[in-house]
Amino acid sequence: MSATPTIPAEMTASVLTGVGSIVLEQRAVPQPAPDEVLIRVASVGVCGSDVHYYEHGRIGEYVVEEPLILGHELSGTVVAVGSDVDPGRVGERVAVEPQRPCRVCDFCKAGDYNLCPSMEFYATPPVDGAFCEYVVIQADFAFALPDSISDHAGALLEPLSVGIAAAQKGGIKVGDRVLVAGGGPIGIITAQVARAYGAAEVVLTDINPARRELASRYGVTRVVDPGQESLEGLDAHVFVDATGAVPAISSGIRATRPGGTVVLVGSADEIPLSVPDVAMRELNVTGIFRYTGTWPIARELVRSGQVEVDSLVTHVFGLEQVEEALSGDGAQDSLKRIVLPGVRRVEDPVATARGGRP
Amino acid sequence: MSATPTIPAEMTASVLTGVGSIVLEQRAVPQPAPDEVLIRVASVGVCGSDVHYYEHGRIGEYVVEEPLILGHELSGTVVAVGSDVDPGRVGERVAVEPQRPCRVCDFCKAGDYNLCPSMEFYATPPVDGAFCEYVVIQADFAFALPDSISDHAGALLEPLSVGIAAAQKGGIKVGDRVLVAGGGPIGIITAQVARAYGAAEVVLTDINPARRELASRYGVTRVVDPGQESLEGLDAHVFVDATGAVPAISSGIRATRPGGTVVLVGSADEIPLSVPDVAMRELNVTGIFRYTGTWPIARELVRSGQVEVDSLVTHVFGLEQVEEALSGDGAQDSLKRIVLPGVRRVEDPVATARGGRP
Amino acid sequence: MSATPTIPAEMTASVLTGVGSIVLEQRAVPQPAPDEVLIRVASVGVCGSDVHYYEHGRIGEYVVEEPLILGHELSGTVVAVGSDVDPGRVGERVAVEPQRPCRVCDFCKAGDYNLCPSMEFYATPPVDGAFCEYVVIQADFAFALPDSISDHAGALLEPLSVGIAAAQKGGIKVGDRVLVAGGGPIGIITAQVARAYGAAEVVLTDINPARRELASRYGVTRVVDPGQESLEGLDAHVFVDATGAVPAISSGIRATRPGGTVVLVGSADEIPLSVPDVAMRELNVTGIFRYTGTWPIARELVRSGQVEVDSLVTHVFGLEQVEEALSGDGAQDSLKRIVLPGVRRVEDPVATARGGRP
Amino acid sequence: MSATPTIPAEMTASVLTGVGSIVLEQRAVPQPAPDEVLIRVASVGVCGSDVHYYEHGRIGEYVVEEPLILGHELSGTVVAVGSDVDPGRVGERVAVEPQRPCRVCDFCKAGDYNLCPSMEFYATPPVDGAFCEYVVIQADFAFALPDSISDHAGALLEPLSVGIAAAQKGGIKVGDRVLVAGGGPIGIITAQVARAYGAAEVVLTDINPARRELASRYGVTRVVDPGQESLEGLDAHVFVDATGAVPAISSGIRATRPGGTVVLVGSADEIPLSVPDVAMRELNVTGIFRYTGTWPIARELVRSGQVEVDSLVTHVFGLEQVEEALSGDGAQDSLKRIVLPGVRRVEDPVATARGGRP
Repeated sequence: MSATPTIPAEMTASVLTGVGSIVLEQRAVPQPAPDEVLIRVASVGVCGSDVHYYEHGRIGEYVVEEPLILGHELSGTVVAVGSDVDPGRVGERVAVEPQRPCRVCDFCKAGDYNLCPSMEFYATPPVDGAFCEYVVIQADFAFALPDSISDHAGALLEPLSVGIAAAQKGGIKVGDRVLVAGGGPIGIITAQVARAYGAAEVVLTDINPARRELASRYGVTRVVDPGQESLEGLDAHVFVDATGAVPAISSGIRATRPGGTVVLVGSADEIPLSVPDVAMRELNVTGIFRYTGTWPIARELVRSGQVEVDSLVTHVFGLEQVEEALSGDGAQDSLKRIVLPGVRRVEDPVATARGGRP
Repeated sequence: MSATPTIPAEMTASVLTGVGSIVLEQRAVPQPAPDEVLIRVASVGVCGSDVHYYEHGRIGEYVVEEPLILGHELSGTVVAVGSDVDPGRVGERVAVEPQRPCRVCDFCKAGDYNLCPSMEFYATPPVDGAFCEYVVIQADFAFALPDSISDHAGALLEPLSVGIAAAQKGGIKVGDRVLVAGGGPIGIITAQVARAYGAAEVVLTDINPARRELASRYGVTRVVDPGQESLEGLDAHVFVDATGAVPAISSGIRATRPGGTVVLVGSADEIPLSVPDVAMRELNVTGIFRYTGTWPIARELVRSGQVEVDSLVTHVFGLEQVEEALSGDGAQDSLKRIVLPGVRRVEDPVATARGGRP
Repeated sequence: MSATPTIPAEMTASVLTGVGSIVLEQRAVPQPAPDEVLIRVASVGVCGSDVHYYEHGRIGEYVVEEPLILGHELSGTVVAVGSDVDPGRVGERVAVEPQRPCRVCDFCKAGDYNLCPSMEFYATPPVDGAFCEYVVIQADFAFALPDSISDHAGALLEPLSVGIAAAQKGGIKVGDRVLVAGGGPIGIITAQVARAYGAAEVVLTDINPARRELASRYGVTRVVDPGQESLEGLDAHVFVDATGAVPAISSGIRATRPGGTVVLVGSADEIPLSVPDVAMRELNVTGIFRYTGTWPIARELVRSGQVEVDSLVTHVFGLEQVEEALSGDGAQDSLKRIVLPGVRRVEDPVATARGGRP
Repeated sequence: MSATPTIPAEMTASVLTGVGSIVLEQRAVPQPAPDEVLIRVASVGVCGSDVHYYEHGRIGEYVVEEPLILGHELSGTVVAVGSDVDPGRVGERVAVEPQRPCRVCDFCKAGDYNLCPSMEFYATPPVDGAFCEYVVIQADFAFALPDSISDHAGALLEPLSVGIAAAQKGGIKVGDRVLVAGGGPIGIITAQVARAYGAAEVVLTDINPARRELASRYGVTRVVDPGQESLEGLDAHVFVDATGAVPAISSGIRATRPGGTVVLVGSADEIPLSVPDVAMRELNVTGIFRYTGTWPIARELVRSGQVEVDSLVTHVFGLEQVEEALSGDGAQDSLKRIVLPGVRRVEDPVATARGGRP
């Protein structure tokens, strides 16, 4: 193992110990296995799934039964490498693809490693995530960042990967008309990705006027208030739902053109699906579960400026403030919240997000 | 127009004049346009959609507002051709692909002519179908039949085309495990098509033991009584629903493996769709609306013996008996019912189906 | 037929009467068939194939046996419509997709109408082209132009369609590294299209320094002088040859990564193909023959500014000067030459191209 | 490591020590790594590449610089497993997919592990193959064989995988017309696979009348003597070359229909490729390099009887006879030659192939 000399034996971690309960604990710094790198975490995005585990202790069949470190959108710096990894990587700034597929099952060998039944994914019980000072990941899932990509943007390559996976699953192509429901981080990112994939028109709907206004700054060609305006006749080639709301999904499906694709990204339970809609218009209704192979693309989209993510950050917190970070995620003025594991407290989360010092 | 000398000016047609009302009428024999052929109809299959129009006067947005000739599964003989068609085709036995796309819209030019918004489809209001003595169709939608394919089988290339479209949409490939719900004509045909497309296993479910027994003679590798046996763990690559029944669709979706495809063929209204099922397993839920380019494939599958359709015929009727043909379609002992427009009455529909004289 | 009142009975046409011989002739203005529009031609691009017919009287199996009007890259204004076409289209500025497929063969019905064996294509013997005052085309192959697209750009949607077809055939996708050989109009257009399809890097090679310099203004990320620099290790996802030169093709193939695609666009006869290159690296070597469905995409790429074609025009000629237009096509300072059928003579072709009056 | 008690420390191996030189050597029996199984080899097919290494010491860039054990088509029995492998696999009869990809590069993670630049492939320098008593392979590349598949057939799942990869790369689908050049083992296997993939017609060419006669017993619908009969007008959807001979490739390309695919499987150096053939007919010329994910399909095709490989075996040899096995591979009466590493000498290789005792 090659390493910088300053790695401590213990680190501080923010741990979910029960529904609504987050505590700081001391944990051993993990040792990188031969094919792994050890990363000092710089920036971690808060995802809706983190909030859901915090509030409900489960997502579907995934149940938090032991203390769990949340956080799976992250960037950092390689501080040590396993014996099989190039020692020259120590010091490298990286974004992390937070998954560990088995690499031997049929799904993995066919390139669909996101469907691996033995997947270990950050912050999905019982696998710990990144609200802590150090993490390990297999070396090929740590992607070098150029200086032009900030720590926050590096962390946000994860939600950007969701948008890329949605665009790929939807088959968005040059000249398409794309409908995106929802003006939260995923919706705004997906809209930008749709443009990068060549969409000629991107229509975004949100019931919140502030989010519509915001979305219109990110390459969206038209915003729609679904309470006021019908999508009838839109005839979208691809519809991506980033709300999980039944009315948004239903009207989006009706606004999709024959032969088009519906990608369900937002979390929802059960929706009513009109079979004639699907059959007589030959729609493809599908969804995405994470992503495969998206980090290099995400990095390139940010590097080239085709997708802008830094400005989505509205709040920045320290490691002691994870509970605050998780609690306020649904606030009107909040878009993307970031935790800095290397900082204890940020005095003014909003000002810091705008470029102030932590 | 080249023609045989014996074409009369008038013909008899079986006409739907209102819900539950079928009458015989005299109609002018149609004249083939320059690109059309005139066909003396030999054999016409009864489809569930014919029955639905007869019983309800509508299917979704398609409403019978004027008298309508039903029937769209047909074979016959070319008896005259339009001025642009090779006169050598007179006398040719043909199966008819019963649609007339516009050929100029974006869908048509992209090869998706089944989605043509200007489509004129047999027996879909206000376009007449084939329960009559003569029909016209554009020459390229009339496919020559070899002697080895019977008139009935020629008519049944239409439901076979539905099965082929389902297999293609589902992406059935060599080695796949395929689940088919429903042991009616479409289910049994789809099961056979699945084998022809290389499926290693075909599991068919039906609540009716007689249909399960029947299905097992047509290449199905396993039949399941869904009331007795769970499909849990089946892990099908492709699931084709040919029932339209919510419980069948729901359990089929759960039995589909991650990344698999669900093709909805059976008529249904609204089904509850579990979003986690679709998203976390990245299922593709889709349907088919008719078909494109399937007749040559259907003809080859029957010619080569890979698909057997003659034995599906359980009842044969004459043109005066269309009402009887439509009324009994749901009977236990009925699988596929045929109308012979050239025959007024068949004394014993069952015996005739078994090879007796009409 | 709806029409403006000013259509004359006769028009002037520039006719290829033999190898190296072009004469002006009077021809009847064509009458639009029911499904056609009559177009007063505004701008016609000169293509290498026009030059080849002029110099050699044939391209492969296509032999000029009767007098032929050349020119197939065109824009103009609808001045009359056939009986089945919306009369409201009179006055519409349009770009023409210069082909007339049969719409009934298997290729047409499958969406591959460019492979239609009965295709009638402008300026391909014996079908006349557009170096004349008026032409007809089926209404669905005339695409309305917004004011923001110039007549020249409208004509150049044709070579842009070649670039789009190449990008689609190559499967260029977001993040790809694309190699384009040749800095002529097709090469420069293809490079721009590659960017629009998401290529992260576009490397263009040309032996001519002026063309390399020019190409670098059109979104190319790196230009290479193939005489000085090896492409070894480039590892392109897609290689598009727009030269037809054996050395360019061979070195491009070697620079393509395993699993990559080689699209041959430049005219060539026979090339030596290394089977180990193709087999052991599983390359896909293919080509394009015209295009299908590209005009809406081409129009959108120009409208949105993703592709710029106006500045490619270096010379503009009148109808009397077609011979001059064809003769000088290979000159160093020439990129794209345009003929204006509505103008007899242009005094200074270069100044006119730069925006002067004809 | 779980193991049966009878594994010796040393084994006998047949080693290529130089061009034309094979000697028996004693080698240590390999120890299975944690993710590997140890296999007692039962049956090994002789491949043209083995013969090529024996005769020339190299294949392209792969050069034999150290003593090398040849043989990569094999079946056997698991006799020990590594610490991470289910001990219940000891005793399992298996077919081996003889490759070891890195599983971490972009190709591997995208499902294209055959293109892995770090691949270690049996019998490709410097990786030893299977002409020896014991081999190790990672557990997921050893596929359980049912009793109905013989040892020889288990070994021949490897060339069958080549045929499957060719069919997949060619996109052979139901109803296709397929041309196969070459009636050797790969050609005959590919023809059978083409049928299993739904080809309606399979035309096979060979200059050798005995091979044509033989091929006609394996599902080929027509055999052609290329010296006597032209393939003009065949219009194949897919052409697979299994000869490597320039005339066969050239005439096959001409016999492929527009939009069709040419898969080069036979070893060749350079072929002349007509660019107009490729471009104006939009052919896809490609090749295969080994395979991914084919063993389960191969096993199913043999199990179901869709592909028959046992009868292809014409000669069976013992481990002392490897040189004889390699030397006679091109003989007229030889189709597939097998080596039994567990047997020293076979008295009558032909009689043994026909079912006699070794």
